[in-house]
Amino acid sequence: MKNISNGHFETIVIGAGSGGLTVAIGLANLGREVALVEARHVGGDCTNVGCIPSKTLIHQARSGVGGAQALAETQHKRNHLRDEETSSVGATKHLTLIHGWARFLAPRRLEVQAEDGARQLLTADSIVVATGSRPRMVDIPGLPAERMLTNETVFELVQPPRHLAIIGSGVIAMELAFAFQRLGSQVSLVTRSSRVLEQAIPEASEALAASLAERGIAVHTRATPDRYDQVGATLHIQSNQGLLAMAGVDYVLLAVGRERHIDQSLTQTGARWSEQGIETDSYGKTTADGVYAIGDVTRTSTYTHSANAQGRRVVQRIAFPLLPAFGREPLFPNATFSEPEVAQVGMMPDAIARQYHPQLIQRIRVEFKDIDRGYTDGVRHGFIIIDAVRLTGRILGATVVGPHASELISFFNLAISERISLYRIYRLVFPYPTYSSGIAKVADTWMRTTLPNIVGELKAYLRYRLARPLPEQSAG
Amino acid sequence: MKNISNGHFETIVIGAGSGGLTVAIGLANLGREVALVEARHVGGDCTNVGCIPSKTLIHQARSGVGGAQALAETQHKRNHLRDEETSSVGATKHLTLIHGWARFLAPRRLEVQAEDGARQLLTADSIVVATGSRPRMVDIPGLPAERMLTNETVFELVQPPRHLAIIGSGVIAMELAFAFQRLGSQVSLVTRSSRVLEQAIPEASEALAASLAERGIAVHTRATPDRYDQVGATLHIQSNQGLLAMAGVDYVLLAVGRERHIDQSLTQTGARWSEQGIETDSYGKTTADGVYAIGDVTRTSTYTHSANAQGRRVVQRIAFPLLPAFGREPLFPNATFSEPEVAQVGMMPDAIARQYHPQLIQRIRVEFKDIDRGYTDGVRHGFIIIDAVRLTGRILGATVVGPHASELISFFNLAISERISLYRIYRLVFPYPTYSSGIAKVADTWMRTTLPNIVGELKAYLRYRLARPLPEQSAG
Repeated sequence: MKNISNGHFETIVIGAGSGGLTVAIGLANLGREVALVEARHVGGDCTNVGCIPSKTLIHQARSGVGGAQALAETQHKRNHLRDEETSSVGATKHLTLIHGWARFLAPRRLEVQAEDGARQLLTADSIVVATGSRPRMVDIPGLPAERMLTNETVFELVQPPRHLAIIGSGVIAMELAFAFQRLGSQVSLVTRSSRVLEQAIPEASEALAASLAERGIAVHTRATPDRYDQVGATLHIQSNQGLLAMAGVDYVLLAVGRERHIDQSLTQTGARWSEQGIETDSYGKTTADGVYAIGDVTRTSTYTHSANAQGRRVVQRIAFPLLPAFGREPLFPNATFSEPEVAQVGMMPDAIARQYHPQLIQRIRVEFKDIDRGYTDGVRHGFIIIDAVRLTGRILGATVVGPHASELISFFNLAISERISLYRIYRLVFPYPTYSSGIAKVADTWMRTTLPNIVGELKAYLRYRLARPLPEQSAG
Repeated sequence: MKNISNGHFETIVIGAGSGGLTVAIGLANLGREVALVEARHVGGDCTNVGCIPSKTLIHQARSGVGGAQALAETQHKRNHLRDEETSSVGATKHLTLIHGWARFLAPRRLEVQAEDGARQLLTADSIVVATGSRPRMVDIPGLPAERMLTNETVFELVQPPRHLAIIGSGVIAMELAFAFQRLGSQVSLVTRSSRVLEQAIPEASEALAASLAERGIAVHTRATPDRYDQVGATLHIQSNQGLLAMAGVDYVLLAVGRERHIDQSLTQTGARWSEQGIETDSYGKTTADGVYAIGDVTRTSTYTHSANAQGRRVVQRIAFPLLPAFGREPLFPNATFSEPEVAQVGMMPDAIARQYHPQLIQRIRVEFKDIDRGYTDGVRHGFIIIDAVRLTGRILGATVVGPHASELISFFNLAISERISLYRIYRLVFPYPTYSSGIAKVADTWMRTTLPNIVGELKAYLRYRLARPLPEQSAG
């Protein structure tokens, strides 16, 4: 508190979500005087309306716990963690928590307005914007407010819906569709996209579509909500089959993406930003001196682990400005806790196609049902797909779909980040019978297709290594 | 079949278990003429009485399937896979399956006796011994044969036992104790050891002991079976509390280790072997020219994945003798599918203590209950422990206890095998919330304890790097 009297801190962090906490606690632990400004709950989306409640709910649902009990346990765990995080912030030396809304007056100067209207002026050597995002809203005529849910309200339910219509098919939509189906809800998905989880490779979408169908979850692609009729609780949707009516829909969950939470006063700092987020360098520095940004407000992925990783790099940059930079930004893996889980790391196929000639790339796909652990566990949908450079065996990107995909992906993250080729992975022994022994099969397949034709592979490599990628096909 | 007439093959493999199949199919696929001699079922222990039925049973038990149904499904899956493997061997070109018992006459000459007594003489350029192991037996006076089980008979049960006494506390004992407890059996463990899963680090044994206790599985350490009394189905055991009587024990499962299945005729070849197994170099070559050995009959670990890995190296050595050797033998990870799972890779603490001064080693332990995924999933027992070299951050050994430990361990296998330091692992981003983000916490802890004291770490490193390890303490 020593600096609160004159309102000056070494660093002010705006937003006490995952990323903001990482920076605030990280710097405070290094002895810096830090203020953390938060308008709502400590913990941000992740603790309060994101990963923590969703993963608790998924775990309860998979463990066979009943709907009401699962929801109660989810709220209980969420509240407990929120309390813990709040008191841990309070107990951190050199860290001052300030409740209120922050507004920039200049690059290093803020005004914070408390709930009671009281204002205070704060200044700092550096300010970190970590204000996150909020759910994008869609207007559905006729839908009463109490029937509409977002990730910010869905975990307040005390009973699973009878019939939950989910608008969207991204990460949140997928995770909650499978969870509520397990809890006994009828679930219907309505999405503008032509496939679910569009951000993943099409093979992952196919596996999810098959699993959704098996569980009786209706999926309406290329469809949008039209209106809601309280008589019969009917949601009307526009699809390419015309107007459809879904009856008995007691709740509609909006999961159509996120909007960055950027206060217009940021213009006072000179930091550049657009709808895609605040511009930063690989250490979170914006175009304004002394102003940093991390997490959902930036252009990188909107995952908690991305915000944390960015936060750690900002701590390093602010606390040790003279330390050599750790090099390029790390890879950000993706994970969706659907059934099957979907995880991805490295380059996506479209990025590979922009950079490499297709003849230079070998794709290997191993089905989990063809390895022994998939057999003993009765896995139907799941695979590992990797794209590697021919001859060299360097992996460019990997997608895992299936049990524990979110755990397995870190192996590929390490291999890609450290440029460990498939020749070297081939040497590893994987415990039997595990899903990760699918990785051994990937390396076996690589060796079996590459070694007997090593001269041909060398020729192809030399020919296509510097060849241009094929021109992109114009969209249909 | 082209070579069967004169009885000569390029390679003969004795034993159609995991390791033997790897070699036989691997070489046949490369066009070598191979005979595979098997006295019982194709698939060996793993398919018939090991990993496949045990992991199927564990999966069924964890999914909440009832006892009789779980056992029926286990037999069904086992039989189906056995049939598949048998027909896949039959369909492999250049591979001849011969039923019978093999006996060495000379290094490259065998006699095979079929069940009907018919004998045939076989010769080969190389012979691979992959005859595996069998359960070690213990005599329990009074125990009728039909009340005694080993891993070779336990999966034939059609109902779970009412009260299963398991003699032993190794991998098989642990896995089946948790599985049968879930299927509704009362389970009691009787072990000579002072702790369960003695081959793991003591911290893993503690976690298992706590979990066993929570599930009401009685554990008698430093105890041996004394006799069985059919009246009241009572198993009497000797423990350090004297003679104890366990009532209503309808089945006793022996899981007290394995005996290598080595035919005395091996002496005809000049290959050296002892009770610890057949001696081989790192490519499976015995001391006899043209004779190889892999899997349980050798001195390495008795895991299916070890046998497979050795098999792949033998294929390489036989098929491509001029290829440069791939270097040192790979690391063999361990995995026990108990609850929690236990997995380990790299050097064990006792091996580290023999090679390094204790002041040179930093141990880091991260509890799963302290990371968010452990919190959402309510994990009570689980952790990551790594031993690393101070200053350099090189990991020497790792143990993971908890959900998906058998999958997470491959990350450490890659890191240790490729000598990727904790400084570099610190750079990685792990999906949130996963168990593997415990690895990030390990690296964070490393950085937090090492960086602020880098001069002290450097001094310690220089001082103890070449220092002798402490003399071993005399036992108790």
